[in-house]
Amino acid sequence: MTRIVLVGTGNVAWHLFEGLRRTKDLAVIQVIGRSAKALAPFSKATSTGDFNRVLTDADLYIIAVSDDAISTVSQLLKLKDKLIVHTSGSVPKEALAQGVRRGVFYPLQSFSRDRSLNLREVPLCIEAELPADLALLRKVAGSLSEQVREVTPEERRQLHLAAVFANNFTNHCCHLAHEVLKQRNLPFRLLLPLIRETSEKLREMTPYDAQTGPARRNDRKTLSQHQALLQNGIRSDVYTLLTKSIQQTHAEEL
Amino acid sequence: MTRIVLVGTGNVAWHLFEGLRRTKDLAVIQVIGRSAKALAPFSKATSTGDFNRVLTDADLYIIAVSDDAISTVSQLLKLKDKLIVHTSGSVPKEALAQGVRRGVFYPLQSFSRDRSLNLREVPLCIEAELPADLALLRKVAGSLSEQVREVTPEERRQLHLAAVFANNFTNHCCHLAHEVLKQRNLPFRLLLPLIRETSEKLREMTPYDAQTGPARRNDRKTLSQHQALLQNGIRSDVYTLLTKSIQQTHAEEL
Repeated sequence: MTRIVLVGTGNVAWHLFEGLRRTKDLAVIQVIGRSAKALAPFSKATSTGDFNRVLTDADLYIIAVSDDAISTVSQLLKLKDKLIVHTSGSVPKEALAQGVRRGVFYPLQSFSRDRSLNLREVPLCIEAELPADLALLRKVAGSLSEQVREVTPEERRQLHLAAVFANNFTNHCCHLAHEVLKQRNLPFRLLLPLIRETSEKLREMTPYDAQTGPARRNDRKTLSQHQALLQNGIRSDVYTLLTKSIQQTHAEEL
Repeated sequence: MTRIVLVGTGNVAWHLFEGLRRTKDLAVIQVIGRSAKALAPFSKATSTGDFNRVLTDADLYIIAVSDDAISTVSQLLKLKDKLIVHTSGSVPKEALAQGVRRGVFYPLQSFSRDRSLNLREVPLCIEAELPADLALLRKVAGSLSEQVREVTPEERRQLHLAAVFANNFTNHCCHLAHEVLKQRNLPFRLLLPLIRETSEKLREMTPYDAQTGPARRNDRKTLSQHQALLQNGIRSDVYTLLTKSIQQTHAEEL
């Protein structure tokens, strides 16, 4: 039985906790957090505590807190020679306290507390300093997900950057679409079937092949009509730049 | 029984044809196209023909061809006083031939030939010059979809512009993510669970609320790390502008 202490009570901690509970060979023996209120949902299923009560006999400590807090939290644990990992896509493992065995356990997903999620499909990217620690992380990750990937620090950074384009920026484009609709009091839900189909298509074809629209076919009439509707401002700038980027991408077809 | 002639053999025509076949009170009595090869899949289920053989006794003619061809095709039909609609988001109904009753039948979706699609969820936006024609379009659209919306020309243009943000631009952001991954030989499929979750979240919360990432929380360290990874070029410009746009959107929280 691999004994795990989970540090943090946010969305990532919650989904890892839910996933770990369903496994056979792994046990979350404790969840650590600052606030009793935030610990309450965890306390129904395991032992909980603050930073003065950290169990010292676990095989693995997973720090699932915001990027800024990782370094401080890892020091508050006051552990020596233990395997400690964080779950961030962008923080180097050297941010973890000195004198511990450092690693990373990065789930490539966007977590919301209220949405149930199938961790088995979520890519888990792992790093460790020592081969034995990497083997343990591989085992833990493999119990949670079918997509375990050993990565280098450079690969993890690149994955995180790609995730910003595929999640943060796509979501913001949907926000801009929402703003466009609001101008005529049209409801956002009209776009939901299109948004779903846009993402589902990518399971079968590359985004290069899936690209459609006035920019790809260089439909100048529609492009200038859209610019007129957008007038000036940042939405118009986004339209201009993404149109240019699509045209560069598909330049050879035009 | 409402008798319909479908003009065009592309993706939109195919999905409308498939949807119309499943209804009770509507019959596609003919599909018109230029090429016998393109007509072949339709000819198993209905009569087909070229522009010299257009049946003149239908209640409705749906022109589902590319934007540029709508005007020419509507003239090739050589019809008088008949109800003719096109399926475009951006073309005015005045592009249709003179002397006919004009209308629009715009499905707000991205169609691919090889993907089956549930038309019942697809918003169908309708316009017509005459009230009786609007009633007929409402009936036809209502047989295909639960989301029928009578729109003004201005609303349809705005919907089409919003669709460019929600489909064309989100897809292109996924292409840029793909390019970022290629630099380290990382496979695109690693992003698929994230892309799916990004779109599914929007069924429960607005894109404003769903926004996460370094731009929203003004995480300067990660933002400048990403800029360094992107170096110069249009990907870097897109990163800069979308980051700025997210920050403007969420300025009050920062």
